Amino acid sequence: MVPLLQKEGFPVQAVWGRTQEEAESLASELDIPFSTSKTDDVLLHPEVHLVCILTPPPHTRQIAVKALGIGKNVISEQAATLTDACKMVTAARYYPQLMSIMGNSLRFLPAFVQMKRLLGEGYCGNLQVCEARVYGGSLLSQSYGWAWEELMGGGGLHTVGSCIIDLLSHLTGRRAVRVHGMLRTFVRQGGPAGGIRSVTADDYACFQLLMNGGVVCSVTLNFNLPGTDVHEIMLVGSSGRLIARGTELYGQRASMQVEELLLSDGGEGVGPSVRGLNSMVTQLRLSFQAQEDRRSWARHPVSMAASFEDGLYVQTVVDAIKRSNRTGEWESVEVKIQDIDPNHNHRTLPN
Amino acid sequence: MVPLLQKEGFPVQAVWGRTQEEAESLASELDIPFSTSKTDDVLLHPEVHLVCILTPPPHTRQIAVKALGIGKNVISEQAATLTDACKMVTAARYYPQLMSIMGNSLRFLPAFVQMKRLLGEGYCGNLQVCEARVYGGSLLSQSYGWAWEELMGGGGLHTVGSCIIDLLSHLTGRRAVRVHGMLRTFVRQGGPAGGIRSVTADDYACFQLLMNGGVVCSVTLNFNLPGTDVHEIMLVGSSGRLIARGTELYGQRASMQVEELLLSDGGEGVGPSVRGLNSMVTQLRLSFQAQEDRRSWARHPVSMAASFEDGLYVQTVVDAIKRSNRTGEWESVEVKIQDIDPNHNHRTLPN
Repeated sequence: MVPLLQKEGFPVQAVWGRTQEEAESLASELDIPFSTSKTDDVLLHPEVHLVCILTPPPHTRQIAVKALGIGKNVISEQAATLTDACKMVTAARYYPQLMSIMGNSLRFLPAFVQMKRLLGEGYCGNLQVCEARVYGGSLLSQSYGWAWEELMGGGGLHTVGSCIIDLLSHLTGRRAVRVHGMLRTFVRQGGPAGGIRSVTADDYACFQLLMNGGVVCSVTLNFNLPGTDVHEIMLVGSSGRLIARGTELYGQRASMQVEELLLSDGGEGVGPSVRGLNSMVTQLRLSFQAQEDRRSWARHPVSMAASFEDGLYVQTVVDAIKRSNRTGEWESVEVKIQDIDPNHNHRTLPN
Repeated sequence: MVPLLQKEGFPVQAVWGRTQEEAESLASELDIPFSTSKTDDVLLHPEVHLVCILTPPPHTRQIAVKALGIGKNVISEQAATLTDACKMVTAARYYPQLMSIMGNSLRFLPAFVQMKRLLGEGYCGNLQVCEARVYGGSLLSQSYGWAWEELMGGGGLHTVGSCIIDLLSHLTGRRAVRVHGMLRTFVRQGGPAGGIRSVTADDYACFQLLMNGGVVCSVTLNFNLPGTDVHEIMLVGSSGRLIARGTELYGQRASMQVEELLLSDGGEGVGPSVRGLNSMVTQLRLSFQAQEDRRSWARHPVSMAASFEDGLYVQTVVDAIKRSNRTGEWESVEVKIQDIDPNHNHRTLPN
């Protein structure tokens, strides 16, 4: 992300790394004047006005809430738990003058921007079904880390599924009312010498979302397919369909014999997430340029971005899918900020 | 099917049509000496030794049971109900010297024959997930008929899903223990002048089968995609995957960077069902030639074919999926021939 920000003219002032060595190495490689292994040093840095949070999910909430409290704008990845997502929304509501957006770059991918526009123009007629498939290799880090642990925000559903759930809501303008899901961890052990650590995070997820208005979404994620890179979203309506494959968009109205290529993005091997990130940073810059006062970004938010409220919705759906996986039943999606048990997840989420 | 049988040297002696005119037209077109609109006339015809039942599902059981009772060999499509499937199994058990097989031609498609062989040879390692997708245009007949009615054996789940459920069991050598499903009828009305008749048969189905041994199958059927013809089955295991797209077979072991084409069938636009039917009829002929006494076919059955017992299993799974669609819960699959309520489905299944 740093090179993308720099390319768009954002001066990247400070970088955080897990260790001082990692931070210094990143700073040197990316030409960043300040590096640290303490997140507070970044947040308190006087030249830092926008904080991009790309840390392990269990740290996300704490950094996001603190950054807003210090008066910094925030782009954040999904937090680890529903409690965290609630606290982030509370902070975002408390500092409405600051920018607080989720970093789901898929919303900015040109294929999905055009898909949303065409859907709105009636290309598909009445929307019936959305199908999403993401297949790829293992999401596990080489050495043991948060990605291995379900409760720390690891797993295909939390990391990739979150982006798809957000995207489907963004594209269709609808939210899930009830969900059903099935999660599996097929690769249950790993480690450099094999069999050392157990994995609790899912590597396969199959879930259905019933959206308001009767639209059905079906999503399949499988990260046991090394050497594959399938990223496909299909919207089917009464009079046509739109299909995004990777960074390309295809369409077929009911009257057509064959698909038409609607957008060839020429990504040259760059996947949808990276390509989307590129567009997101460009939008950030445009949003930035459109304003005289840098600190009032929030008054002209990056209109396509997901808000922290959207992040709470996504986390609520993710939790409902996990609940459905345990109960075997359809679970209701009720987005609420109150009534969160303050002791919930204490063991896994120490302050 | 008649031209395929004739091409393989089977003399087709009699044909049934819904009306005498239709029967005569078929007989004339296909060069068949005898035609009738009464099914009994075919069954009792002295030159008929093998009866291929391709009638509307509500007639299937009656014809199949009667044909076996008269001493004729039978190839049958899926019956309309579980009660019917039970009665067919009872008849097949009562006449073990006669051939009684289900007409699911997908089992005979060369791509699936090779897929089953490679799976058995360990191409995929430990099997984890099967994904099946069938997308196409409407299954409804032009004018109102059984295909419009769920209780008469219409709908994507019953007609196409049955073949997929049978195929997945055949390929993996496993059976579904529990199932979950969601059915929809998006096109709810139809007719030559529009809006005349209501449709109860599903045009969208999304279901999951938990197979013994922990294998997960996920199937999506969507018949609201005119101008599309997707027929894809993917088996994913610990060390590789096999993918049948239409009549072609692809594979990728975990060590490979790209997919390999394992079988290019050169179907020239012929879909998997028709191509499979071709192979099935060829197998029938080979099975036929391997025997001196035509009446003892059952002693050398067409080994790949689905038995009526397999048909009962498939119907049991279909019923469990329909039940799950109503209850929203995972439903157990318990194949049993006894304890069928004799009054069940009486309204929809008059003798």
